[in-house]
Amino acid sequence: MTPQRVTLITLGVEDLDRAKAFYAALGWVPTREIAGEVVFYQINGMALGFFGKSALAADQGRPDATLGTGAITLAQNFETEAEVNAAYELAISAGAEGLKKPEKVFWGGYSGYYADPDGHVWEVAQNPFWSLNDDGSLTLPTS
Amino acid sequence: MTPQRVTLITLGVEDLDRAKAFYAALGWVPTREIAGEVVFYQINGMALGFFGKSALAADQGRPDATLGTGAITLAQNFETEAEVNAAYELAISAGAEGLKKPEKVFWGGYSGYYADPDGHVWEVAQNPFWSLNDDGSLTLPTS
Repeated sequence: MTPQRVTLITLGVEDLDRAKAFYAALGWVPTREIAGEVVFYQINGMALGFFGKSALAADQGRPDATLGTGAITLAQNFETEAEVNAAYELAISAGAEGLKKPEKVFWGGYSGYYADPDGHVWEVAQNPFWSLNDDGSLTLPTS
Repeated sequence: MTPQRVTLITLGVEDLDRAKAFYAALGWVPTREIAGEVVFYQINGMALGFFGKSALAADQGRPDATLGTGAITLAQNFETEAEVNAAYELAISAGAEGLKKPEKVFWGGYSGYYADPDGHVWEVAQNPFWSLNDDGSLTLPTS
């Protein structure tokens, strides 16, 4: 079997500097970097990286592919609606495209969506049924 | 600022049962589920979920969008090339599309790629410069 695990999320980007600038505006600090090629950020228990979109296609074994975006959402959960609003507003002010302003949603939480400059979709949410651990990681409730 | 953190990865899928069957064949066990709507898996420090592709588009605030895939890679790192090969072969036998058979790569590691039934791309890799923690999580080396 394969472990139930993700160790690296790689986002394909059009322009590495543009991507770095956007995430820098959110307060993110690169952990490791090969100038002009790849940038890695330490996140909770794994790494998140940016890699040129055509380089990523080639690395994936399909150099002629036009990579899409949007069928994956990366989410950040927060403890309060105010934190969700602040995260959403910060992203918009940094140049994100607002997809859905944070609002109360049918499942009982509060959630908004934005797309980063490359179209990668982030949800910012407060879920009253999911508490975050002290280190910001999430353990799904099992009952 | 926004924390350098991801708490949930949501993969948009065409057919929830097909997606569940594929990941079940890899040995993954759902942690929580709303039958016919959404499935969540506990992974290292966060959750990974499946959600219908059109439902995801609507949830993202763009119900008429046709969501793409491929410009994000989710990676699983392993300690040995043999484990990489085993993970790749298991995915192929479960119905994944092989994109690149695991091979030695220019950055000094060993890596392959496959696409799950919805086109979500997974890299399986061994990186001699990145050791995994005992719990399978990753801490980026800083020097």
